[in-house]
This record gives sequence, C-alpha cells and structure tokens, in this order.
Amino acid sequence: MLHCLVPSLERPEEAMVLRDAAAHHLGGVLRARPGERVLLLDGQGRQLEAMVAEATRREVRLEACGSVRTLPRIGPSVTLFQCIAKASHMEWLVEKAIELGADELVPVVSRNCVVRPTIGERVARWDRIADAALEQCGAAWRTELATAHSWSQALDRIRAFNGSVIACALPPGTPPLRDVLAAPGALTGRYALVVGPEGDFADTELDDLQAAGARFAGLGPTVLRTDTATTAALACLRLLG
Amino acid sequence: MLHCLVPSLERPEEAMVLRDAAAHHLGGVLRARPGERVLLLDGQGRQLEAMVAEATRREVRLEACGSVRTLPRIGPSVTLFQCIAKASHMEWLVEKAIELGADELVPVVSRNCVVRPTIGERVARWDRIADAALEQCGAAWRTELATAHSWSQALDRIRAFNGSVIACALPPGTPPLRDVLAAPGALTGRYALVVGPEGDFADTELDDLQAAGARFAGLGPTVLRTDTATTAALACLRLLG
Repeated sequence: MLHCLVPSLERPEEAMVLRDAAAHHLGGVLRARPGERVLLLDGQGRQLEAMVAEATRREVRLEACGSVRTLPRIGPSVTLFQCIAKASHMEWLVEKAIELGADELVPVVSRNCVVRPTIGERVARWDRIADAALEQCGAAWRTELATAHSWSQALDRIRAFNGSVIACALPPGTPPLRDVLAAPGALTGRYALVVGPEGDFADTELDDLQAAGARFAGLGPTVLRTDTATTAALACLRLLG
Repeated sequence: MLHCLVPSLERPEEAMVLRDAAAHHLGGVLRARPGERVLLLDGQGRQLEAMVAEATRREVRLEACGSVRTLPRIGPSVTLFQCIAKASHMEWLVEKAIELGADELVPVVSRNCVVRPTIGERVARWDRIADAALEQCGAAWRTELATAHSWSQALDRIRAFNGSVIACALPPGTPPLRDVLAAPGALTGRYALVVGPEGDFADTELDDLQAAGARFAGLGPTVLRTDTATTAALACLRLLG
C-alpha cells in the first residue's frame, strides 16, 4: 500500500484534501489513481487508511476507510547524538535513523566536524529526507530531528539523560559493544547513542563524555565510517537492546 | 596511518614497489610523501608497515618497517546471500559488508531483482568498491565477492551451509531477530544471512528458503530498505551474534 505523510491526523476530516508536499508526493511522484488505497501517517503514531477519490499534482481528495488507529512506540528507545557527518553520509544516516526508528536525532557540532550548521539551525534538507524515509518505510512514529546543538548543549542533555549512554569510540582497548551491553544495568531499554564525526571525537571530548557517564563501546576491529558506525550501533540497540 | 591494499604480501619484498591501482591510490589519491608510514594490507590477513621512499602517481617505492603480521579472523562468521539491490543501494551495501567484515558476499539474482547481471559474472565495479572500502577501514580480511549466483545455485549453497541460516523477511508474524537468536542452537558463531531485493522474496522463494532450513527473522515494525536490512542484520550478527 502507498504511504503518505500528512501534517496531522488529529482531525481526520482535515486530512481528506491533501495539498502541497503530500499532494505532490501522492499525486505527482507516486501517481496515485482514483480507487487506490493509501495509508496516511502523521509521524505521531496515528494511521488512517483512505482511498483516493480524485488526484492531481496539486490536490488529492481522499475518502477515509475506517477510523484513525494510534500505534504505540515499539522496542527500545534511542536518542541519537550524532556529530555531523559530511554531506551525503549525514543524509544517508538521517534516512537510516528514521527507518530503524530512533526517537530523536540530535545533530551535534563537535570539534572535528567539517559541516557546521549554525547552532540552533534546523536543516531543512534533513527534514525533507526524514519525511521521504518515513513515507518509504511506513513508520508510525517519525524520528524527531532536533536543531543543531553545540558540544556543550549536547553534553548538558547527555549528563541529564535518564538511561544508558553509549558512545561509539575507536581508541584501542575500548570494550566491544557486546560486553558493554552485557554489563549489569546496561540494558535499560532507553539509550543515548553518541557517535563522532569523520575525524572522531577530540581527546577532550572523550574526557567530557566519560565525565558525563557515557560507556564507551567498540564496534569491531576495523575503522567504520561514521554512517556505518551509527547504523550498526543503532540496529544493535533497536533490534537486540 | 594510510592503508593500502596490495595484491599479495606472501613475498613482502615484491610489495616494496607499487604500480597500477595501488600506486594510483597511494601516490595519486592519498598524495603520500616520502617518510610517510603506510599499512599495507593484502586482504588475506597479512599486514606490513612500510615507509614511503619515493612516490609518483605511477610508482611508489617503499621500505618495510618490521615484518609481515598475520591476523586471525575475528568474531562471528557471516556469509551474506544478497539478492541484488538497485545500483547505488547495492554499491553502498558492498561497502558496508566490507566494513562490517562479512566473510563472503554472494550476489543472488532472485525473481524480483531489477538489476540482473549474467549468472557467473564478476561485477568489476563492486570489486573496486570493495577494495576502496578495505583501504578506508583497514580490515585485515577482505570480504570475498562471489560471482552472480542464480537462485537455485544460491539455494544449493544455503542447503549445504554448516551453521545458522537466517533470512530477513517481511511477512507479518515473522518472529523478531532477537527471538530467533535467542532460540536454542541459533548462536552458532557461523551464519548465512539471506536478504531479498527491493521487491522482497517471491512466495515460492520463501518456501524454498524454509525447505532449505532457513529461520526467518523480522527487523522491526517498518519496511526497511534492502540495504538497511542487510546492514542492520549484519551488524547484529557480527557485533552481538
């Protein structure tokens, strides 16, 4: 079935006429035709099945089939503190965070980041990629994309985090993720995952993370790209954590 | 330290003059200068530290520092039977398989594959991506890239596989990967991972896999892209399996 993200399903009757991005996606990109079934998603847990009545690129009229269902969040909760990766890697990573169902992605400007949006900026391109990924995978809940955080803002949130904080780190001697998750009290079902940029964390940042209570975890013997590290660790936490 | 893949380190003295792809990579792309340290890798577990003596785009002369070390394979073994994904997704996935240390990647032409190389063909572009990924991540062992397999060739290998065969599947009611790995006898340390293409497995292929002894595993409530599914399952098996 086609998936379409709509601004809200709180008042479902208002979602029966789609315009703008939703109409473009459904009528233009997916070329939905009258009679086709669509699953409307609002990214806030609500879903509604509908049938296309009329479709152009500008406007799609729908008829509801049944009523709105509200789905719970499923599985361990992960807040991803991601030091911003270079362009296409960051975009790919946003897509994977949505697909794998992170609760929130907090883009962090750390010492070694090459791409450095203004602190507090919401990067529109990442939001569009997140919307498209949600429509692709049909997740009931959309990963919340935070505005760009400074390192100290991120640290404040990590210090206050109520759950297990796991930082992916490269230094030799870092225990493997398996051992970190096997430690008593590590499997909390609620994780903050902190991943460095291409140039990794600076030494002072590693000290900051340790002081903030993070457990460092290694992801095998090779130097993973940051997008691989994030996807691998996120998958382990979401699927097995 | 720079990494450079060389054809062989069985006779290390022969690796002290690099030409062709290795010289282009080291002298041209990485712009290695005399005095720089390089870790030579042969993808067969051997590593040798060397110093650049002279470097041009055509030829790089090295001096060995120490002798060849042979590293064992580390962690669970995964043979990935990957139904071929569309262009950029397949390429991305080859890179991730290398980084996450799959033993072998077997590209499979299944019913719903859009990209269909000739059976028996070795896709040169995937080989180049695999080499580049190995140089990036510094893995001691390179994932072996098999030639394109037909569905029945892949099934023959899956039937004969000595370990746990896990197929990522979408049908509702598929037990989650966590439960599959928690089942008695599932954690063998030796896995075949079977992942479908964008259009998923055909129904007859699901029957074939079941008859061949595969355990089906779900990867969460959303419909993951095939490259996400592969990376997520491979990470779980390699890091926690």
